[in-house]
Amino acid sequence: MKKEVTIVGAGLVGSLLSIYLSKRGYKVSIFERRPDMRTAAISAGKSINLALSDRGIKALEEVGVMEEIRKIAIPMHGRFLHNADGSTAYQPYGKKGQFINSVSRGELNKKLMDLAEQHGVEIFFNKKCENVDWNKSEITFEDQTNFQLLTFNFQLLFGSDGAFSAARLAHQLQHDRFQYQQYYIDYGYKELQIPGGEQGEFSLEKNALHIWPRGNYMLIALPNVDGSFTCTLFFPFEGDPSFASLDSAEKVAAFFKTTFTDAYELMPTLTADFFTNPSSSLVTVKCFPWIREDKFALIGDAAHAIVPFFGQGMNCGFEDCSVLNDLIDEYSENWEKILTVYQQLRKPDGDAIAELALNNFVEMRDKVAGPTFLLQKKIEAAFSEKHPGKWLPAYAQVTFSPQIRYSEALKNSIWQEAIMQQVMALPGIENNWQSDEVEQKMLELIG
Amino acid sequence: MKKEVTIVGAGLVGSLLSIYLSKRGYKVSIFERRPDMRTAAISAGKSINLALSDRGIKALEEVGVMEEIRKIAIPMHGRFLHNADGSTAYQPYGKKGQFINSVSRGELNKKLMDLAEQHGVEIFFNKKCENVDWNKSEITFEDQTNFQLLTFNFQLLFGSDGAFSAARLAHQLQHDRFQYQQYYIDYGYKELQIPGGEQGEFSLEKNALHIWPRGNYMLIALPNVDGSFTCTLFFPFEGDPSFASLDSAEKVAAFFKTTFTDAYELMPTLTADFFTNPSSSLVTVKCFPWIREDKFALIGDAAHAIVPFFGQGMNCGFEDCSVLNDLIDEYSENWEKILTVYQQLRKPDGDAIAELALNNFVEMRDKVAGPTFLLQKKIEAAFSEKHPGKWLPAYAQVTFSPQIRYSEALKNSIWQEAIMQQVMALPGIENNWQSDEVEQKMLELIG
Repeated sequence: MKKEVTIVGAGLVGSLLSIYLSKRGYKVSIFERRPDMRTAAISAGKSINLALSDRGIKALEEVGVMEEIRKIAIPMHGRFLHNADGSTAYQPYGKKGQFINSVSRGELNKKLMDLAEQHGVEIFFNKKCENVDWNKSEITFEDQTNFQLLTFNFQLLFGSDGAFSAARLAHQLQHDRFQYQQYYIDYGYKELQIPGGEQGEFSLEKNALHIWPRGNYMLIALPNVDGSFTCTLFFPFEGDPSFASLDSAEKVAAFFKTTFTDAYELMPTLTADFFTNPSSSLVTVKCFPWIREDKFALIGDAAHAIVPFFGQGMNCGFEDCSVLNDLIDEYSENWEKILTVYQQLRKPDGDAIAELALNNFVEMRDKVAGPTFLLQKKIEAAFSEKHPGKWLPAYAQVTFSPQIRYSEALKNSIWQEAIMQQVMALPGIENNWQSDEVEQKMLELIG
Repeated sequence: MKKEVTIVGAGLVGSLLSIYLSKRGYKVSIFERRPDMRTAAISAGKSINLALSDRGIKALEEVGVMEEIRKIAIPMHGRFLHNADGSTAYQPYGKKGQFINSVSRGELNKKLMDLAEQHGVEIFFNKKCENVDWNKSEITFEDQTNFQLLTFNFQLLFGSDGAFSAARLAHQLQHDRFQYQQYYIDYGYKELQIPGGEQGEFSLEKNALHIWPRGNYMLIALPNVDGSFTCTLFFPFEGDPSFASLDSAEKVAAFFKTTFTDAYELMPTLTADFFTNPSSSLVTVKCFPWIREDKFALIGDAAHAIVPFFGQGMNCGFEDCSVLNDLIDEYSENWEKILTVYQQLRKPDGDAIAELALNNFVEMRDKVAGPTFLLQKKIEAAFSEKHPGKWLPAYAQVTFSPQIRYSEALKNSIWQEAIMQQVMALPGIENNWQSDEVEQKMLELIG
C-alpha cells in the first residue's frame, strides 16, 4: 500500500493534486524548480489571465477550496467585441447566469500553495528535476541555490511540471517507442496592461472578456480585482505586421493607435511593456504513454500542453485531478489499475481539447467578427433554448458541461458544424432564421 | 565561397551526397559513429533488404555509379503472394519491363563508401556527434575508441545520420519553436533467413518480392545474389500473436509451420534467428525546419524517417541528394538560396511519402490478399494501358516516375482512390469490368 506521493512541479495542477491526495491521507511532497513565488520576486510579464470555468470549478469544489478562490475571481458573462470600425458588440457565453471567471494565474497559484501547506503538503523550492532511475524508483534534483544533487526514493511519482516537463523527459528517454509531438503555431503572445482607475474602477466593461479581433491576430483583455485588465496580444512572429516588424516604440504606438484605437488610449505603459515583456511561443504537446506501471503519471500540461484559445488548459488539468480522484475510490488504491484507466480516459480527452483549442484561435481572431458567425450563434442559441435536449452549443459543452467528455464535445461539435453549414446555406436565412421552416429543417437534419 | 563540406553519417545518403559534392570540387569529410563496416564485424540481423527503384536509380546514374550497383541488384518484377490457404498469386508492379531491385543494405553501403573514397572523400569512423556550436560553426565529436573529444570548424554541414540523428538533436536543442513528431506504429520487424541452395540456386521465384499477407501481419522475402532470401517478419509487439506471445522456440516453430507453411520449410535456422535477431521498431519522424541559414541541412532519414512499406526510404533520401544537386546548379553555389529552396521543395514531399508509406502497410499485409483489391488493380492496369495519358496507378507514380513529386503522387492517389471506390461499387463489376460501359463510366468520372 502506497503512503507517500512525490510531485514534480508546484504549479496550478501540482498544487491542486497535492491537496486531493493529502486529504486522502497520503504524505505528499512537491519539488518545484523555481523559488517560492509567495516570497521571492518572480519574473512577471509572461502570464495570460486564466478563464476558470465549470470543469475547474468542479475540481476546486471537490477539495473544498472554491470559496477561497471565488474571492479572487471576476465573472465574465460574454465576449465584448471591439471591432476595427470602432463599433462594439456583445456575445453572451451561454444562457443567463452562465459565466467564466477571470483569475490571475499568480494569485491562484499562491492560494493553492497556501491551501496545500495547510493540508500538510511539504513544498521544496529551487529543486530542478534532473533524472529518474525507474528501476530503483529514485529521483534526483539539483538544488538551484547551491547546485548540490539530491536523490530521493519515491513510491508514487507525478509529473505536473508543465509543457516542457523535465519529468516527461526522464520518462521519455528511458521508454521504447515513446510517441511524442510538439507543434508550435506561427503566433506568439505578449502580456500588456490596462491599469485600473484611481479608485480601482474599471475602464472597460468589467464582467466580460474583451476581444479586438483583427482577422490574422487579436488583442484580448481580462479583468483583475484591482480594476486593471491583463491584456494579451496574439500576433504573428514574422511578416507584416508581426513581433519582428514592430521593432521601435514609434511603430508600436502607431500600430496600436490605428488598429486598437480604444484600447490604445487606455494603455499608458504600452511601449515600455511591449519591449520589456517577452514574446512567448504557443505549443501543443502530445505524448504517449503518460504512465509507468503503478508508480508514475504525467498530469496537466506535462501530459497535454494546449494553446490557450478555449480557456481550457488549467480546467483540463484540474479535471485530470478530479478524474484521478474518482478512480482512487473506484479501484480502492490499486495504483496500477488507477493509472491505467486514468490514461485510457484522459488521453483521448487531452487530444480532443488540444484540437478544439487550435480551432478556436481562428474563431476568436477572425470569424467572431463576421455577421455570418454572429447569425449562426444566434440560430444555435435560439434553437437550443427551444429544444434544450436536442442541441447544446459546442462552447457550452466544453465550458459549462463537465459531464460531457472533451472527446464527446469534439465529436458533437463536428456533427453540429456540418448541420449548421447546411442551415446557413438555406436561401434567405439571414431574414427567415426565426421561421418555422428553418426550425423544422434543423429538426429534420438532426434526425 | 564555400569549399569544404562536413557530413555527419556515412550511411547510404551521406555516402551518396559526398560523391555528388566531391565531384563538384568540394573537399568532403564524413564523420561516422560506427566502425568501418568494410573491415569491422558490425552487428547484423537488423536489416530489411532495400528495394531500389527509379528515383534512387536516377540519383545513382547522375553520379555515374549505377553500373557498379547493378551488379549487386536483383530485379523484382512483381509481388509473389503466398496466401494462407496455400495458393499463390503474382501481381506485376508495373508495365512489362518495369521492376524494382533487391539490394543488400550492407553491400550497397560498402560500395558507396568505396566510391566516395575513390572520389577523394575522407571518412572518419568511430566519431560520435556530440554537440554543435552554431554561432562558432564548430562541431564536436567523441572518438569511440578513446573517448577523446574532437572539435572541428565547418563551412557547410549536413546531417545524414538517420532517424535518430544526433545532428538533428543539436539543431533542435538550439532552435526556437522547432516542430517535431516521432510516431511509432504498434508493429516491429525481425530479420530472418531463407538460405540459398548448394549451387547458389534460389528456392523461391528469384525475380519477385515475396509476401505472405496475413491480415494483421506479414512476412516478406527479398532475393540476394547468393541465392538466399532476406526475410522480414512485420508483426505486432503485443497481443496474440505477437513478438511478446511467441516466447519459446516451440511456439515460434508451431506458429510458422501453421501460418507460413511453405516458408517454414525453407527456414532451417528459423528459431535460432528469431531469438538472436532483435525485434526492431518502426518510426516516422517529421520535423521543421531542416536547415539553418547557409550552413546546415538535414537530409535523408534525419529529415524524414518513414516506415519501409513503400520501399521508398532510401529512394527518397537519394532523391534529396539529386534535388539538392540541381539547386546548386540553379543558384550557382549561393547556399542560403539553395538550402531554402531545398527545404521548400522537399518538406512537402517528405511528408507525402511518409503518409503513403504508412498507408501501404495496410495494403501489403491485408488488402493485397483480397479479390476486390486484385480486381481493382486489374481494372486500373487495363484502363491505364488503354488511356496512358489519363491514368497512371499510384504505385507506378511513386516507384517508376521520378518526374512526379511525392506530394503530387499522394494527391493523385487520393483522387484515384475516390474514383475507384465508385467504380468498384458499380453493379456486377466483377463480371463486366472489361465492358465499354465501365470504361465510359471511368472516363466520365475522370472528367
